[in-house]
Amino acid sequence: MGAGGSKTIIAGGLKHCTLWKADRSPSCRAVMMALDALNLSITEVDVNMDKGEHKSPELTTLNPLQTLPIFKDRELILNDSHAISMYLANRYSTSDQLLPRDPGRMSVIAQLMHFDSGILYPRYQMAANPILYENCNFVMPQHVCDIECAYNDLETMLAGKTWLAGDTTTLADISVAATVSTLNVLVPIDHTRYPRLSSWLDQMSEEIYFITANKTGLGEFTRRIGELSEVENENCT
Amino acid sequence: MGAGGSKTIIAGGLKHCTLWKADRSPSCRAVMMALDALNLSITEVDVNMDKGEHKSPELTTLNPLQTLPIFKDRELILNDSHAISMYLANRYSTSDQLLPRDPGRMSVIAQLMHFDSGILYPRYQMAANPILYENCNFVMPQHVCDIECAYNDLETMLAGKTWLAGDTTTLADISVAATVSTLNVLVPIDHTRYPRLSSWLDQMSEEIYFITANKTGLGEFTRRIGELSEVENENCT
Repeated sequence: MGAGGSKTIIAGGLKHCTLWKADRSPSCRAVMMALDALNLSITEVDVNMDKGEHKSPELTTLNPLQTLPIFKDRELILNDSHAISMYLANRYSTSDQLLPRDPGRMSVIAQLMHFDSGILYPRYQMAANPILYENCNFVMPQHVCDIECAYNDLETMLAGKTWLAGDTTTLADISVAATVSTLNVLVPIDHTRYPRLSSWLDQMSEEIYFITANKTGLGEFTRRIGELSEVENENCT
Repeated sequence: MGAGGSKTIIAGGLKHCTLWKADRSPSCRAVMMALDALNLSITEVDVNMDKGEHKSPELTTLNPLQTLPIFKDRELILNDSHAISMYLANRYSTSDQLLPRDPGRMSVIAQLMHFDSGILYPRYQMAANPILYENCNFVMPQHVCDIECAYNDLETMLAGKTWLAGDTTTLADISVAATVSTLNVLVPIDHTRYPRLSSWLDQMSEEIYFITANKTGLGEFTRRIGELSEVENENCT
């Protein structure tokens, strides 16, 4: 493991906060984007998952589930990217733009984050893990269909909206963008079938925090998948 | 569809709030328990999923994803049980016992709810849906193993604690109890392998809101599974 990223222990940062992360992981990139979008600097530590560093005794003590990211702020330890991002916004942001404080507006963000947790991320794992860890070299047809269904849901959710929760970007867009930009490597988003989703991802890709905190890890994931697979994209209409 | 439940449009209730629900669904029961635990009364409408009522034009307009529950409070419409429960607590509860307002403590609740969304609920769906909708009459061995892994994670999380987030019950216990009590029908929790989880579920089962809002629907689910399957419980150590 080693300190990594461009914002490691910089002056004015939250020196009591540490993030253990792997750039390849979409959930780690979601937190990294949230940090940049919130203009917060914390200690970031790169963890090499291929070397099993996330299963080291030190990190297992912090997170017995042996997953990344891991976030620590003094006595508080969290391992879910959505909880970490919401905590950072609630605890350290003076603006409520990325996470509105109004219960109704906040609940819409929370709902989209649960869509990411419950639908998008499991489908990412089911499609990617056989390639990354089980010598499979393609996305299985059923998993392609499941991902297409999720794209269809997102296309529906984006009707009449530029961003997922309305007129401005929020933590919901950031969490979903981390996962969807990664799914897009496995099952490319057809812009004729999903014009709103495709346009949304294009716009997210131009956000400065997407460029600073998602692009490198997404490129790393793309190369790794390219080395291991012949990604197929079968239609399942 | 028909108005249902014991608290329909009672005096002093939140008459501008409506919940469309099916008692069989764990996510609906999570919201129903949260309502009872928060001592809130709203209009509740029973939806017969076997008759496809959740796909009616009226409900599809409210929720294009055609899932239950659906919650409406004036202009706000939500379909994720965790977002609904958090909204109810944030918006209408004067107590912070079930959902602490402190960002750190709230983030722990949020994290547990994302564990429910991202791990428990998808495993419930993968195990139950083939029985409920695809003429399968057992829980497939891989799904048994996945559920046992989730039990193991919960056993780890409960180390040194009575409740999931510490000393008192919170919305996290309620959401997880709705799902785990249902998983327990499909893959019974072995109290020798998971003593803390087993004890936690026993204690949750005695909470008044579990009895008023979870027990009936859980019984309905248990009978339905019993009619359709020969639930197996294979060890996968």
